[in-house]
Amino acid sequence: MNHGTFPFKLTSQREMAESFGALHRRGTVLILPNAWDVPSARVFEDEGFPAVATSSAAMMVSLGYPDGEVIPRDEYFKSVRRLATVLTVPLSVDAAAGFGRTPGEVSLTVRKLVKAGAIGLNIEDFQPGTNRLLSVDLQVQKIKAAKAAGEGLKVPMFVNARTDALRFGKGDEDARFGQAVQRAVAYRDAGADCVYPMGLVEASRIKEFVGRLSFPVNVMVRKGLPTVSELNRLGVARVSFGPYASYAAMGLLRRISREVQGKGTYEHLVHDAITFEELNRLASPRERPVARPSSR
Amino acid sequence: MNHGTFPFKLTSQREMAESFGALHRRGTVLILPNAWDVPSARVFEDEGFPAVATSSAAMMVSLGYPDGEVIPRDEYFKSVRRLATVLTVPLSVDAAAGFGRTPGEVSLTVRKLVKAGAIGLNIEDFQPGTNRLLSVDLQVQKIKAAKAAGEGLKVPMFVNARTDALRFGKGDEDARFGQAVQRAVAYRDAGADCVYPMGLVEASRIKEFVGRLSFPVNVMVRKGLPTVSELNRLGVARVSFGPYASYAAMGLLRRISREVQGKGTYEHLVHDAITFEELNRLASPRERPVARPSSR
Repeated sequence: MNHGTFPFKLTSQREMAESFGALHRRGTVLILPNAWDVPSARVFEDEGFPAVATSSAAMMVSLGYPDGEVIPRDEYFKSVRRLATVLTVPLSVDAAAGFGRTPGEVSLTVRKLVKAGAIGLNIEDFQPGTNRLLSVDLQVQKIKAAKAAGEGLKVPMFVNARTDALRFGKGDEDARFGQAVQRAVAYRDAGADCVYPMGLVEASRIKEFVGRLSFPVNVMVRKGLPTVSELNRLGVARVSFGPYASYAAMGLLRRISREVQGKGTYEHLVHDAITFEELNRLASPRERPVARPSSR
Repeated sequence: MNHGTFPFKLTSQREMAESFGALHRRGTVLILPNAWDVPSARVFEDEGFPAVATSSAAMMVSLGYPDGEVIPRDEYFKSVRRLATVLTVPLSVDAAAGFGRTPGEVSLTVRKLVKAGAIGLNIEDFQPGTNRLLSVDLQVQKIKAAKAAGEGLKVPMFVNARTDALRFGKGDEDARFGQAVQRAVAYRDAGADCVYPMGLVEASRIKEFVGRLSFPVNVMVRKGLPTVSELNRLGVARVSFGPYASYAAMGLLRRISREVQGKGTYEHLVHDAITFEELNRLASPRERPVARPSSR
């Protein structure tokens, strides 16, 4: 069968959402890179990741807004659409606290995300700009609203329910761990597809969390996180970069600056850099090889 | 004198344009980094560069458009404004061939750039999407129109006249070099503030070019370019990164991808990375220390 040349979508948005969900149930951890603009998203696709996510912090700052829900909604959705348009793999987006305080507002956000081309979202359980956790009840309602909004549009949006209880909960570390588990269970039971405890790093803690949930768990890269093969043994479903790729890129710009100002050389600028032609190609969807008929 | 806290502009746009021009006449080469989005621009400012430029290729691709003049004009100017808003140092922009085929269209572009907050521009002498040089006469008219447009708004826009004759001229290398010199002389005499022969890399060629112009010359970083101190000796006025910082950043994303997929580790993601707080601060203009009254 000849699929023709690009641009074309191999699968519908519904199929993309389903295949993204299946990536969390293979028994091996999904490595999910977080992009912030068109070329970062396309480099990750070219490198063979089966899906791409966004980092809201990286994306918003790249457009001149701090992390949170400060960015005008239209600009946020436009930015999501830009990435979805240029990718041929599924795109899951970081949607802060759902860009809304009520389940109805979250529902509207999810419908707009579907229309922008996303097939999944992260939704967090604290109000941007504060360190205060939302009530479990409200967050459960927001998660149910997000799931229902996708279903209403016949796209099974993958809802990754983030909890910041490990950071912003009450009491000592053990108490906050207990709150994170309790919240994750509530979000799972509300219909979320994956839970994402922010700040879960240590192997023993990860193992305990996964064991208590028996459900897909997402961890974020940071210093000290177990390697991918260890995460596999711990039963983690997804490891994502969070904003780290943008932190690393900005770190590189600092090294570039210091080298050229200090030594007057350009090694960091030219080392392992891509070319003009490669950069320019990143503005267009990936050209897929034309499928050849099988020889049977 | 207390300058107050941000946001404030230390100098007017006119003063910024004048100080940017003066940076080309100090007798030492101006190192000008090219950014493409808010955080890349702000990192360069934080690192102490006295001015920031854009790379049109990097900026356009980051928004999903190939290099050239494909990007809708409004989106281009909006992107320039985003960077100018967040910087407190002068911003010079890469304006392709002036976003127009006629001097009148170039004049309109420059007026919009001034309103977006830029104080200088690069204008190239071939039509985007082709490898054909424009006639010298037409380019001279475009440069005159660009200068006049700035003056009409009382902002002495710094016009950096790029020539691609070394790449797209006729004949052998020597013939093309001659054409590049001839074009640069014509652009200088038309009122440009600096000339920018694309593809000038070798020390002996740079020396000859600078000698024949007796005028500010801009060279671009690439492999084999003499070091900054050598460029100083050669009399170069400006060395700019072109799109190299974005090439390098995309190269880093590739190394990140290959490491996490191959070895299952995250060293390139976390090495020398900036922090969340540092990234978030890049969305706002730099906080300048409040000037203290002198002790006299």
